[in-house]
Amino acid sequence: MNIAILGFGTVGTGVYKIINQANRQTQNLHVKHILIRKNKKPDLPEMTDDIDAILNDKDVDVVVEVLGGIEPAHQYIIAALKHKKHVITANKAVIAQYMAEFTKVSKENGVKFYFESSVGGGIPWIQGLERALRIDDVNKIQGIFNGTSNFILDQMHRTGEPFNDVLMQAQQLGYAEADPSADIDGIDVANKLCISVDIAYDLFIKPDGELPIFGIRNITEDDMAHFDQLGMTVKLMGISHQVGNAFDYVVEPTLYYGDALEAHTTDNYNLISLHGKTIGVLKFMGQGAGQLPTANAVIQDILDIFQNKEHLKREFKSTFKYRSDLTKNNYIVRTEIDCSQLFKRFEPVVRGDYLVVHNVPVGEMHRLMKRVLQKDETAFMASLPEKREGAAK
Amino acid sequence: MNIAILGFGTVGTGVYKIINQANRQTQNLHVKHILIRKNKKPDLPEMTDDIDAILNDKDVDVVVEVLGGIEPAHQYIIAALKHKKHVITANKAVIAQYMAEFTKVSKENGVKFYFESSVGGGIPWIQGLERALRIDDVNKIQGIFNGTSNFILDQMHRTGEPFNDVLMQAQQLGYAEADPSADIDGIDVANKLCISVDIAYDLFIKPDGELPIFGIRNITEDDMAHFDQLGMTVKLMGISHQVGNAFDYVVEPTLYYGDALEAHTTDNYNLISLHGKTIGVLKFMGQGAGQLPTANAVIQDILDIFQNKEHLKREFKSTFKYRSDLTKNNYIVRTEIDCSQLFKRFEPVVRGDYLVVHNVPVGEMHRLMKRVLQKDETAFMASLPEKREGAAK
Repeated sequence: MNIAILGFGTVGTGVYKIINQANRQTQNLHVKHILIRKNKKPDLPEMTDDIDAILNDKDVDVVVEVLGGIEPAHQYIIAALKHKKHVITANKAVIAQYMAEFTKVSKENGVKFYFESSVGGGIPWIQGLERALRIDDVNKIQGIFNGTSNFILDQMHRTGEPFNDVLMQAQQLGYAEADPSADIDGIDVANKLCISVDIAYDLFIKPDGELPIFGIRNITEDDMAHFDQLGMTVKLMGISHQVGNAFDYVVEPTLYYGDALEAHTTDNYNLISLHGKTIGVLKFMGQGAGQLPTANAVIQDILDIFQNKEHLKREFKSTFKYRSDLTKNNYIVRTEIDCSQLFKRFEPVVRGDYLVVHNVPVGEMHRLMKRVLQKDETAFMASLPEKREGAAK
Repeated sequence: MNIAILGFGTVGTGVYKIINQANRQTQNLHVKHILIRKNKKPDLPEMTDDIDAILNDKDVDVVVEVLGGIEPAHQYIIAALKHKKHVITANKAVIAQYMAEFTKVSKENGVKFYFESSVGGGIPWIQGLERALRIDDVNKIQGIFNGTSNFILDQMHRTGEPFNDVLMQAQQLGYAEADPSADIDGIDVANKLCISVDIAYDLFIKPDGELPIFGIRNITEDDMAHFDQLGMTVKLMGISHQVGNAFDYVVEPTLYYGDALEAHTTDNYNLISLHGKTIGVLKFMGQGAGQLPTANAVIQDILDIFQNKEHLKREFKSTFKYRSDLTKNNYIVRTEIDCSQLFKRFEPVVRGDYLVVHNVPVGEMHRLMKRVLQKDETAFMASLPEKREGAAK
């Protein structure tokens, strides 16, 4: 199989590396082209800056898009599919925006559009989810989907250092971008949650719609110490529930007791779970990012195409409706303003510097916090665990 | 596809239940026969006690063997394969004994022999392992493979109750058999570890060979309290390492610090991990037993056959050799006899009622403990974690 890699950053380089190690089932894979930026000097004979030469090369079977960002990734993916090339991408932002279009165009052209590496990096999450869906409806998804924010929270938890110091370390280690917003404001989690929800409910929903998102930008070392005193650990989660014909989804800081696996998912690891009627709970833990784990997932998709292993078909014809009040949580809130009035319907209880509110519909909580943030841009909140599951430490 | 289920116990009933719920991709599956014991009264029209009628029915595509035990399961599986029927089994004992023969006979007859449900119940472990092996060599496997022993250890840890009381609870809950030996003496873990190792190293090794096994029969509530004081949790693990051309494998009680996911795998859950060169660590957690999760895994195999999704091919031609000294661990030992002489090469240090020994080759440790058990049949041991990984609680 001849492969063209669009983009030669971290993941693209990783794909090239793994394919060029002679091992097991990758010996039939051959990288024919690597697309680099216009006017960049090619270091390898496979490199070119001519996308049309790649698209028009009839020997190219698979295009691996690892450019990142929305454009030109979107237009290259569509063009490659229309040139009857299978497309594999690790680019969660472009998939979350254009999943329906990519699915439609790939079907029309009789080629595959696969994206295992886009969610959970090396974790076989998309595959595990699609497999579960062969038998069960999946009625809960919850995940630590973003390694950078998990690294930051874990590091703050271990060291007691302030957010900004730890963010800087993450940037120095190459875990966080110069503009860290996608990671710390929950946008990356939103993309990955939406991709997962699209598959789970066979429904196309863009992450810029009604999805409530609250990131970790405002968390302080004092918040961390307080949660620690409560015997809880905070994680940035993407969560979705389905009940009957309704679903909800949310990205928010979530507290776990020490008996939850989430509380012990350290460093930049991801942990993603599903719940199905017959399978019960399944949890997948591994490297959610990084060159070789992500490249491994890209190559798994290539091998699925090579071995003719079809992924789950998507129709996007489900009639599920989003309900912002499907789930009610207790929340802990830190703000300098007095908002007991704002939350008065939700049994607000002051606990030191924090306010605990009860049984708040998730959508309503995020609407109220937007109002709090307008007056106090340093405010923070996290959802509380429903009850202690078991008693082991 | 027409299916015959051999045996109608917990798992067989579960397979029948799930297939007869009209859902998603199981609508093409049809249970045509159910084999029940000779002279047992049939409750369902599909039931028969005539194995030959099933074998000679040309409409039967898949035989699901869920009888358990070695014979007649072994002879029925071989007969079904020779009658050109795909075979799926959840029976780890018979697979661990006859993996090579089943693989050979299935190849000769152009049919599949799949066994996802035999290890990890509903966890997609075999599939996850085979998938990882498409790209990586897997150089470490470690798992909480047995839900019953995990339930017992977790319950002792939570409640402080003695082993025998908790074992009786497990028996009352239906988690443990009247003869609990397979679960508490590590035999079930040995079977599942051997099946995993067979696949990982493409090597057939029976569990009754050189595999060192130490179970949890001798653990006391005082041992539990002591481990708790040390900040550690004990789990019955199956572990294998591979280095170059050598591998080892062991079943033994293993201590974990509180930052390990293993320490937080509660109740009767399983947690199975692999390590590969490019993928890094992957962990899979879920229901390792139980009617519907196990039946779900059986049906996943049926769907793989129906959708023509081939599993990894096994040749069993690897030249890996077992080395009993490949891994060296520190161990904590409890015995009433003075064995500082026996362990004198391994820096024995007395700590209260316990002896800690250092850097002991795993095979040697198990040989020495056999000698200890001859004099003190209540002795217990567990391997100690190498070092504290990270500092989070």
